[in-house]
Amino acid sequence: MDQVRTAIEVEKVQILPAENDDHGGVVVKLEEHMDSDVFLTLLKTSMSQWTIQGKKGVWIKLPTHLVNLVEPAVKEGFCYHHAESDYLMLVKWIPKTTNTIPANASHRVGVGAVVLNHKREMLVVQEKNGILRGKGIWKIPTGVIDVGEELFDGAKREVKEETGIDTEFVEILAFRQSHKVYFEKSDLFFVCMMRPLSFDIQIQELEIEAAKWMPLEEVAAQPSAEKESLLKYITDLCIAKVERDYSGFSPHPVTSFFSDQPSHLYFNKKEN
Amino acid sequence: MDQVRTAIEVEKVQILPAENDDHGGVVVKLEEHMDSDVFLTLLKTSMSQWTIQGKKGVWIKLPTHLVNLVEPAVKEGFCYHHAESDYLMLVKWIPKTTNTIPANASHRVGVGAVVLNHKREMLVVQEKNGILRGKGIWKIPTGVIDVGEELFDGAKREVKEETGIDTEFVEILAFRQSHKVYFEKSDLFFVCMMRPLSFDIQIQELEIEAAKWMPLEEVAAQPSAEKESLLKYITDLCIAKVERDYSGFSPHPVTSFFSDQPSHLYFNKKEN
Repeated sequence: MDQVRTAIEVEKVQILPAENDDHGGVVVKLEEHMDSDVFLTLLKTSMSQWTIQGKKGVWIKLPTHLVNLVEPAVKEGFCYHHAESDYLMLVKWIPKTTNTIPANASHRVGVGAVVLNHKREMLVVQEKNGILRGKGIWKIPTGVIDVGEELFDGAKREVKEETGIDTEFVEILAFRQSHKVYFEKSDLFFVCMMRPLSFDIQIQELEIEAAKWMPLEEVAAQPSAEKESLLKYITDLCIAKVERDYSGFSPHPVTSFFSDQPSHLYFNKKEN
Repeated sequence: MDQVRTAIEVEKVQILPAENDDHGGVVVKLEEHMDSDVFLTLLKTSMSQWTIQGKKGVWIKLPTHLVNLVEPAVKEGFCYHHAESDYLMLVKWIPKTTNTIPANASHRVGVGAVVLNHKREMLVVQEKNGILRGKGIWKIPTGVIDVGEELFDGAKREVKEETGIDTEFVEILAFRQSHKVYFEKSDLFFVCMMRPLSFDIQIQELEIEAAKWMPLEEVAAQPSAEKESLLKYITDLCIAKVERDYSGFSPHPVTSFFSDQPSHLYFNKKEN
């Protein structure tokens, strides 16, 4: 065995800085500027090493200022995985076994907030931008969930930002899935029932044209709220909630195998 | 006026091929190979034209084989917006007004299928890969929703693929939101109650180690199903559904302002 060992040339090779991930792969994170030829040489050496070591997925995260390294990575067989405004993530699967690279994010998640006061008036807004601009339609405050944000926190934040009203979360009344909302991506929209904790409206000038408390029946009777429109369903569910004890889904903290971050399971707690 | 008009040199300029979008912007879609210097010249001319025309967002979709055009686009001030395995989408907002470029997809969406037969046995599987591999834990069939797929179709597809069992969708029992499941992305997991239409199991060899019908109480009593674990909640909801008429959310087709594709609103139909 000693003879075999000495027959192998041991040489220190320079490879790209990488961290192991939890799935038998490595993640390359670069920050400093690097010449694309230097990068290509290091990448080839690194891939040989990682192949010998039995690594599976190799991830390369390239911040925007390292855009010169995108082309060499693609030429070495890397695929795009996902991108955010400030970085591009590329990936290559080394083994011949089934590729278990996780799917890219497919959905954008939004919330709408149903806020009702004690006079059965709903908090509604008119937006300055977007598809409903200038149409005179009153709608519930809505917005997109921030990265890592809980649905109930997102709903509370949007109401506060758009109208200045403080609220607490009651439950999810309903949700809607839509497809091809932009390019090929889908959308999940959660309708949240919120209890108002304050009542004086202060609108956000940038996005909101107007905001007011409007009788529930007036919201429902708007010309836009025709058959099959979401606003009609929302007002119906809201009336059901007020009058007939409708049960939506409430959050409960749970653990998850897949994340150290707190998760929430939303379900109908009425019968539990 | 005629004098002013003749003073302007009218010249046909070559610009990049682009289509107008619905939001006052343009989408550049390239397929043919192009020299990066030629592209840069065309891009500069095009941006001048679009600025004069009052265009808002300019989108450039670059398939993987046009990776040589990524660097010139970024140097002209474009940002990454999103990427799929075969293309990268870049975007630049021209006006000085508020940027209304839609947020990138933030969530991956999964489904789990609760399938119960008439003997109160649950359809469970052991997976060949993933975090539970080799742990002997029986779990419900799960999977990731395909692009454009309905939740109820995804659940039916996953059960069929993994176990060969035909099912029909009953309702959404619950859903879970988790964060930082991979990189910065989040995850929404929908637990779907399904009614079995067939009972003979045929496992998919690639992903599934074993599948069987297991008494509900045995599933719940597994050592993994400790307090706070998702499987424990799922079996509890399932027992509640069987014994006490638990009400989840059912889908109803609705129209959406934002998409021509069919959308579904999921809500508790019991009281409606």
